[in-house]
Amino acid sequence: MTRSDGRKADELRPVKITPGFLAHPVSSVLMEMGGTKVICAVCMENKVPGWMKTQKVAGGWLTCEYGLMPSATHERCRREASAGKQGGRTMEIQRLIGRSLRGVVDLESLGENTFYMDCDVFDADGGTRCCSITGASVALEIALRKNPLFKAAFREPVAAVSVGIVNGELLLDLNYAEDSNAEVDMNVVMTASGKLIEVQGTAEGAPFSRKQLNELIDLAEHGLKQIFVRQKEIVESVFASEPKKSVRKELGNLGDAFDKINL
Amino acid sequence: MTRSDGRKADELRPVKITPGFLAHPVSSVLMEMGGTKVICAVCMENKVPGWMKTQKVAGGWLTCEYGLMPSATHERCRREASAGKQGGRTMEIQRLIGRSLRGVVDLESLGENTFYMDCDVFDADGGTRCCSITGASVALEIALRKNPLFKAAFREPVAAVSVGIVNGELLLDLNYAEDSNAEVDMNVVMTASGKLIEVQGTAEGAPFSRKQLNELIDLAEHGLKQIFVRQKEIVESVFASEPKKSVRKELGNLGDAFDKINL
Amino acid sequence: MTRSDGRKADELRPVKITPGFLAHPVSSVLMEMGGTKVICAVCMENKVPGWMKTQKVAGGWLTCEYGLMPSATHERCRREASAGKQGGRTMEIQRLIGRSLRGVVDLESLGENTFYMDCDVFDADGGTRCCSITGASVALEIALRKNPLFKAAFREPVAAVSVGIVNGELLLDLNYAEDSNAEVDMNVVMTASGKLIEVQGTAEGAPFSRKQLNELIDLAEHGLKQIFVRQKEIVESVFASEPKKSVRKELGNLGDAFDKINL
Amino acid sequence: MTRSDGRKADELRPVKITPGFLAHPVSSVLMEMGGTKVICAVCMENKVPGWMKTQKVAGGWLTCEYGLMPSATHERCRREASAGKQGGRTMEIQRLIGRSLRGVVDLESLGENTFYMDCDVFDADGGTRCCSITGASVALEIALRKNPLFKAAFREPVAAVSVGIVNGELLLDLNYAEDSNAEVDMNVVMTASGKLIEVQGTAEGAPFSRKQLNELIDLAEHGLKQIFVRQKEIVESVFASEPKKSVRKELGNLGDAFDKINL
Amino acid sequence: MTRSDGRKADELRPVKITPGFLAHPVSSVLMEMGGTKVICAVCMENKVPGWMKTQKVAGGWLTCEYGLMPSATHERCRREASAGKQGGRTMEIQRLIGRSLRGVVDLESLGENTFYMDCDVFDADGGTRCCSITGASVALEIALRKNPLFKAAFREPVAAVSVGIVNGELLLDLNYAEDSNAEVDMNVVMTASGKLIEVQGTAEGAPFSRKQLNELIDLAEHGLKQIFVRQKEIVESVFASEPKKSVRKELGNLGDAFDKINL
Amino acid sequence: MTRSDGRKADELRPVKITPGFLAHPVSSVLMEMGGTKVICAVCMENKVPGWMKTQKVAGGWLTCEYGLMPSATHERCRREASAGKQGGRTMEIQRLIGRSLRGVVDLESLGENTFYMDCDVFDADGGTRCCSITGASVALEIALRKNPLFKAAFREPVAAVSVGIVNGELLLDLNYAEDSNAEVDMNVVMTASGKLIEVQGTAEGAPFSRKQLNELIDLAEHGLKQIFVRQKEIVESVFASEPKKSVRKELGNLGDAFDKINL
Repeated sequence: MTRSDGRKADELRPVKITPGFLAHPVSSVLMEMGGTKVICAVCMENKVPGWMKTQKVAGGWLTCEYGLMPSATHERCRREASAGKQGGRTMEIQRLIGRSLRGVVDLESLGENTFYMDCDVFDADGGTRCCSITGASVALEIALRKNPLFKAAFREPVAAVSVGIVNGELLLDLNYAEDSNAEVDMNVVMTASGKLIEVQGTAEGAPFSRKQLNELIDLAEHGLKQIFVRQKEIVESVFASEPKKSVRKELGNLGDAFDKINL
Repeated sequence: MTRSDGRKADELRPVKITPGFLAHPVSSVLMEMGGTKVICAVCMENKVPGWMKTQKVAGGWLTCEYGLMPSATHERCRREASAGKQGGRTMEIQRLIGRSLRGVVDLESLGENTFYMDCDVFDADGGTRCCSITGASVALEIALRKNPLFKAAFREPVAAVSVGIVNGELLLDLNYAEDSNAEVDMNVVMTASGKLIEVQGTAEGAPFSRKQLNELIDLAEHGLKQIFVRQKEIVESVFASEPKKSVRKELGNLGDAFDKINL
Repeated sequence: MTRSDGRKADELRPVKITPGFLAHPVSSVLMEMGGTKVICAVCMENKVPGWMKTQKVAGGWLTCEYGLMPSATHERCRREASAGKQGGRTMEIQRLIGRSLRGVVDLESLGENTFYMDCDVFDADGGTRCCSITGASVALEIALRKNPLFKAAFREPVAAVSVGIVNGELLLDLNYAEDSNAEVDMNVVMTASGKLIEVQGTAEGAPFSRKQLNELIDLAEHGLKQIFVRQKEIVESVFASEPKKSVRKELGNLGDAFDKINL
Repeated sequence: MTRSDGRKADELRPVKITPGFLAHPVSSVLMEMGGTKVICAVCMENKVPGWMKTQKVAGGWLTCEYGLMPSATHERCRREASAGKQGGRTMEIQRLIGRSLRGVVDLESLGENTFYMDCDVFDADGGTRCCSITGASVALEIALRKNPLFKAAFREPVAAVSVGIVNGELLLDLNYAEDSNAEVDMNVVMTASGKLIEVQGTAEGAPFSRKQLNELIDLAEHGLKQIFVRQKEIVESVFASEPKKSVRKELGNLGDAFDKINL
Repeated sequence: MTRSDGRKADELRPVKITPGFLAHPVSSVLMEMGGTKVICAVCMENKVPGWMKTQKVAGGWLTCEYGLMPSATHERCRREASAGKQGGRTMEIQRLIGRSLRGVVDLESLGENTFYMDCDVFDADGGTRCCSITGASVALEIALRKNPLFKAAFREPVAAVSVGIVNGELLLDLNYAEDSNAEVDMNVVMTASGKLIEVQGTAEGAPFSRKQLNELIDLAEHGLKQIFVRQKEIVESVFASEPKKSVRKELGNLGDAFDKINL
Repeated sequence: MTRSDGRKADELRPVKITPGFLAHPVSSVLMEMGGTKVICAVCMENKVPGWMKTQKVAGGWLTCEYGLMPSATHERCRREASAGKQGGRTMEIQRLIGRSLRGVVDLESLGENTFYMDCDVFDADGGTRCCSITGASVALEIALRKNPLFKAAFREPVAAVSVGIVNGELLLDLNYAEDSNAEVDMNVVMTASGKLIEVQGTAEGAPFSRKQLNELIDLAEHGLKQIFVRQKEIVESVFASEPKKSVRKELGNLGDAFDKINL
């Protein structure tokens, strides 16, 4: 059985990662999974949250904010800034992305700096949280590896993909139409070395069995292996293209920001 | 190796469920898992959310709100009402509880009514979201089964328990101290018939393997089986104690509220 | 004429005070006046509000926050945390409780610490603000007297009771049904030595005379005398039960918190 | 002993009431008690609050909003609109003013209309809530009596004055400096016929006795009698000055608004 | 053709400026343009905004807040403090007033102080933002010139007037009725020496031509010249009336405030 | 003298307009002026704001919301959704864009529909409000002209450009660095037929003369003429590329949305 967009059950949508998408942040990528498009950008601030001071936690911090442009969805969604607060879904997603990234970063090596990962979705076709994690990993790896001082802080890439059960069939990388009709919806966040960072499986309609849980994670692993390949190609191409510049030059846009880093 | 509170690795904390804890709601229980104590209360309103009307969804709705009393935690936590908004953690938890309950309820059988499940924690010692789900299931089952009109809406009980990896050891039903030091933290929401409603596993420090994931779910199932027994005993005792009253009488406190139900 | 719950006009509802109700705060009580049940808990923070610094006011501060659980009332009331702000009634009540307690405490003797009194109502049947003040006094006395450094700060107990005119009759300690129909509603806050801290009398329907004002305060005094006896018994029982422990032990749960006190 | 501003202990500050102060509202007065100046304005809207519909309460409603201009106080106070919420003090005051006015109005005679009483303080020198009540009564009486349809709704005037104990001495109508140093602070709201609407006595420092309570109310009554005379003079002058106009003309500015009244 | 209030097309409404209107601020004026009445008050705080510290900007700051009393308008407008936020119109206006004043002040000469200009409208009949700027300039000039330390900071007066095209005719100083029907609405902010600080022209219905733009500015200049004369008279009268006092005395009310200035 | 980016004083930055940038809205463009990039998207809702009903205004409405992605600026700016409100600058800009578009649209021809124009900036290098207006005009023209029912509603294109005085020199289309140092900053909003919709000139440092005002508008006109050419080319290319499809097909993505339009 083929899917509405012609894919096979275990087939990913086209994965496209465009680094250097924005002019100002330390690094940024445009991350696309089929029709879902997210801008992932890393900014840095030379201080840490108050609670780290109070609780005398050493090192730095990494946090994430997620946003959905009002025109990103099938029906225009209300702008959270004008509604005056972030909804529960937004909070849940940005907490997930933040946890996933902190799972592959050595916070102590970040110095007394806060890294902000902004994930802004401008086209939403299902799987925005997974697409954000995958893109954010690339943006973060570029930001940290470009600077000798932070190189050691990035342990390994992380990526995520959604899987689910739709009309009784197990599908990889659900699009919006599939996601809306899924009986079970699962997000799997994994590191490049195959360890799990987060598994969130939810029965939307009927509950699911242990067997289904395992088959879904198998399916997710199948897709994630391909995604890790794409991430790696992009990061390597970024560093390959700037081989002979001095460190100072190599940083390019980053130069000024890094002059102000607390270490 | 025994745990700080003397339990074995696969041992639950004492489970205590006190029905009829509050005077006014349709039904309520005080749910205790060791030192974690939550009041779960069901109220009902004779209308449904606006989006159901707009999207022409038939039946009723069930939603959850979660709160932590400021004095429930080791360090007083800020009152969200005075902070002016619910935090991300609160939103995430109440969304999880709501989804879990909706997973065992036939919303169409609820008529045009909204059921509110309020879970208010007054002592927090780890596992408040799982404790809330387990208590909420009992409160909801009592509320729905007491009324002939809603009896069919409750499909089966649901319960939740946390499991985790602490210092490399797999533990069941983490208390606050264990939870704070866990490398992996997982919440498993299951129905009485052994189906999964939600699995949320998070690596707090190091990522985890597929093998560990499966062992953790095994451990959770082991605990959940005991919890389902306790839930059943309580619900049966509630209905056993009111055998001969007419339906009207049997409803007791519920009587007035049920007069106003939309069906 | 007897009242709906069988009481005489000048009769209090049953007064029940349960100390040590919560696990984590410095001290706490469950305070019950008939069907009205409030948890009063004292927490402490080792700093004072900004305005005390700015205005160079010496000593410490004591403040109160009041909350009503959504399921505490006959009809579920909206959760203020999700509404995004505390209503006028909540603000008025917590300001009253705070003033009443500060009226019997020597703030200068508290060191540079802030004491938070949280009053959370989980069953409301009229008189929640008075019930809160009475319970809060007990919780505060226990917290302060347990610590040699703060012993002198507590001047004397304070309690409150409502009185009112319902169908032309003067009643003591109104329950919800009476309160809803009262022509005049009055809260009297008094110290154990018989001095007034606050008198708030409000005509809900028809205005009242000077003579009625005085009779209402007489009636309140009659009830308050009995309440002071109950408060005293409880506090004495708390201290009687821990006679031979060293100060360090005696503090029990408080020990850690008190190690961090600013004096 | 004379007071800082030369008054005797039982002497009011100069009372000045200027009707017709604003161009647009149904009626308005500038109310002055010495250095305290409040604009009291009545507006009307042709509908009632939602809860009246829900609870099927007949008649109309009267509500009050209170504001303090940032530059009204000795030290500039923060603008509540930019702070994003009304503080507890504001809420408490506007609730008091609303209750006081509703105590002398027959709400059922107001038709399905809501009357807004806005009390905006532009110079604050103590006693702003009492000054607001006194001025609001005049503005409301003018608004209601001008219209034959509402004439019956206004039962009698209401006024308020503060009294207190400062350095052991009982004083009438405290100014800001006295109020800041008062041991006891009391607001007495009374009707022109001598009935009490609200009594709020608060010990700021030491508690007070029953005897002092009575003396304070005596002192308040002494002042209130003079205030009722001033209120009456002003209202009479307003109606005296427009004797021969037709009802339509007489309403002047009110004409258009009253055309739209629901009755 | 004459206008509804009898004015000629190029005629201002009566301009009235009353200095010293409030008791507490450093200086204040009641500014009236016909039926539009605004209280402009200057307060001072001995610190500067955080961003000035962060960005190491020397000198002081001047900011403006604007408010509309609910009863100031034809239909009562909602109180922004109870709505919980300032609307877009308010923000736009207070930003304009702030910019206009900063255009004639040397911020570096203000020391590390923040000047607050509060413009509170209590009668609105069109042109409130222009009326506010004109009155604020007078209040600010008095505040700064009274103090030898700040004298140099005030460069020259600034004033504003609205002009517009109504039914094809160019009109000066629009009142509310005219403003509501204007095809083009323009606010011109000018200094006493004839330089422009801000020009804001908006087509409400049909767009306008370059020629009309110029004619409108000519008309505005014609009105502004008369306003500058009125401003000057008032400021001179303020200083003329206090000729022989020592500086300390001369400051009057300002004395205390100025003792605390950071310079 | 050339500018930092090599442009002449009267030279625009490269203007690039990409239609059909997003998947879901009725129409959308990516609008670029040099380094400033804005997504302009049109969504439609089949109802009108409440005030139009209340005030019985016929036809439809068009409103604008503006947002700045946190990573769009040189220093990361705070996300307004997490701050809990839109700032004054945002409100001012979105009001300006909305007014500018309503100036070229016949609202009565829109039926009872609301058109939302979302302008989201993801790279900010000066002139974001002008860039938004120019792009929004294109997106709106495409949306309205594609549908025979709305074709008549679009009167003519509108565009905007900034001009300013930097170091005494008049410059067209300021970038961020120039804008930050401008003595005078002006935004000119003009229609394709050369009429003015809005002129906003602000002296940031020194005031400006009438002569400078006119020269600045001349300079803006010079730039706007080129922008109108680019707008026209893009719109023509959009319609040229879909010549033979039936109306239904031609609408493409729009088809479904338009089925639900109120007319």
